[in-house]
Amino acid sequence: MNIGIDMMGGDFAPLEAVKGIRLYLDDTNVNGPATLFCIGQEDKLVPLLTEHNLLNHPSIKVIPAPEVIGYNEHPTKALKEKQQSSIAIGFYLLATGKIEAFMSAGNTGAMLVGAMYSIKAIEGVQRPTIATLLPKLNGSTGILLDVGLNADCKPEHLNQFATLGSLYASNILGIQQPKVALLNVGEEEGKGNLLAQATYPLLKENTHIHFTGNVEGRDVFYDKADVVVCDGFTGNIVLKMVESVYDIAASRKLENDGYLSRLHYENYGGTPVLGVNKPVIIGHGISSAKAFKNMVHLAEKMIETQLCEKITENFQATTR
Amino acid sequence: MNIGIDMMGGDFAPLEAVKGIRLYLDDTNVNGPATLFCIGQEDKLVPLLTEHNLLNHPSIKVIPAPEVIGYNEHPTKALKEKQQSSIAIGFYLLATGKIEAFMSAGNTGAMLVGAMYSIKAIEGVQRPTIATLLPKLNGSTGILLDVGLNADCKPEHLNQFATLGSLYASNILGIQQPKVALLNVGEEEGKGNLLAQATYPLLKENTHIHFTGNVEGRDVFYDKADVVVCDGFTGNIVLKMVESVYDIAASRKLENDGYLSRLHYENYGGTPVLGVNKPVIIGHGISSAKAFKNMVHLAEKMIETQLCEKITENFQATTR
Repeated sequence: MNIGIDMMGGDFAPLEAVKGIRLYLDDTNVNGPATLFCIGQEDKLVPLLTEHNLLNHPSIKVIPAPEVIGYNEHPTKALKEKQQSSIAIGFYLLATGKIEAFMSAGNTGAMLVGAMYSIKAIEGVQRPTIATLLPKLNGSTGILLDVGLNADCKPEHLNQFATLGSLYASNILGIQQPKVALLNVGEEEGKGNLLAQATYPLLKENTHIHFTGNVEGRDVFYDKADVVVCDGFTGNIVLKMVESVYDIAASRKLENDGYLSRLHYENYGGTPVLGVNKPVIIGHGISSAKAFKNMVHLAEKMIETQLCEKITENFQATTR
Repeated sequence: MNIGIDMMGGDFAPLEAVKGIRLYLDDTNVNGPATLFCIGQEDKLVPLLTEHNLLNHPSIKVIPAPEVIGYNEHPTKALKEKQQSSIAIGFYLLATGKIEAFMSAGNTGAMLVGAMYSIKAIEGVQRPTIATLLPKLNGSTGILLDVGLNADCKPEHLNQFATLGSLYASNILGIQQPKVALLNVGEEEGKGNLLAQATYPLLKENTHIHFTGNVEGRDVFYDKADVVVCDGFTGNIVLKMVESVYDIAASRKLENDGYLSRLHYENYGGTPVLGVNKPVIIGHGISSAKAFKNMVHLAEKMIETQLCEKITENFQATTR
């Protein structure tokens, strides 16, 4: 299994990525580790990899990428002009089959544009989407999508997010027949803004999902649904509120609380891009070593379960 | 000062309302209490008022209302058919000047319809709105609006919410030159869905407010803005998430935390309806005695500060 890592992404690049790889290799399971393609500037990477005893490790391949796409660069322009950047090279390796998954904590826009132009959206998927995991009070984990890729959505987009999220929940989270719900302002059918009102009947008729109705803002942390669907504007507000609840807990020395600690983003590593042809994971700008380790585990799982292939099959069946 | 209270609204009616009035009278300030018009079914009210030594209290007037509008009744239909209900009588008293403010923890829709049809929207206000108070980590309190009255909004509606919220923050919360922000998915101008993108320039040009730009989901609990503006769909999700953060804290025995305890809805009593001609406050269905007491205090403040008159002046100036 070959996984590509943009070593130059994240506020603490490349140190946290290197430390994350060390963590991953230290606790990897009996199946043996994946081969990690570490893409980045050699002069910065080599000393750190040496320091962490990773330079000639059998699971590590260093892929030189002399350029870096900064956080504030325009995604399309940067990808075009910096073909030797870690993100551009990562997508080249992914598109050509040299790696089976690619992850970065760098420029989110460049990651999305790269995904759309290199590996492309799965046929039938109108809008690829990004999701976040939601730890529930009962110990389970759910998924919320879209969380920011599609600020304005049409009902059919939300309906497709429901299918994508449901496949993610069953394959990656191991939830049989995931409960899918629409994020809304009330429980009854007919509630909501025009988008939610028009989406509800589509979800009800979607035979690929187990639709359980509406959930409200108060249900986000509870186990009423495994998959919560909304437009990317609302989802992004929710995602950032959830993250800030952890921050508040930490600032008030409550971060060791068994539940609140689970809200820390690093437990989930990164945000999967769903609806593109290969596994792509986008990390948080502040990604820590633990976050990188968990992103690698997520990539492994997405490859192992053949999630993208299953999504492709599902959408072929739908669009026929 | 005459304040009307629907005694029949709320899951624990009329007991919690009676207990709330007792609390209010016990801790009322030197200015002397307002006269409270207790509107409801006499057979239920009288025994409870007697029990709490309130029946012949000089500050209490019992206004018989034989009918009750239930939670699940259709607002317009119920108001039309139940003219002897506590909500219908409350609005009659408000419209005819017998009381100066009216509050209920009952059917929200009926309260809104009642307000629109009896005391009506202030001239120039396209969409009255409901707001929630947001306790900030630094100890201050902000306001978020709309939180559910207007699920679909146009840019000009959000611009008006900004003015309404700013007047509320300066008059009721005592914040000089309140910082007004747009809830969005990024900080920079140009971010967001179509609504947010079109609203930003209007807010920038609104001379009645001190606009400070966008805030994100993570800023809701922080002091970046005193007034946060959004559509009612997003705002309702945020409101209910904030409420559930308190519930989570309580379920995890953290409710005594100095900050988390402030998130309890009962500290704020109820949700003011802004943009109508007289003070109207809608309470939570689960309103406790403390919530009722705080609703009365909020009504007093809305009357004292002449908030509705100031909103009227402001919109007259704008629309001329």
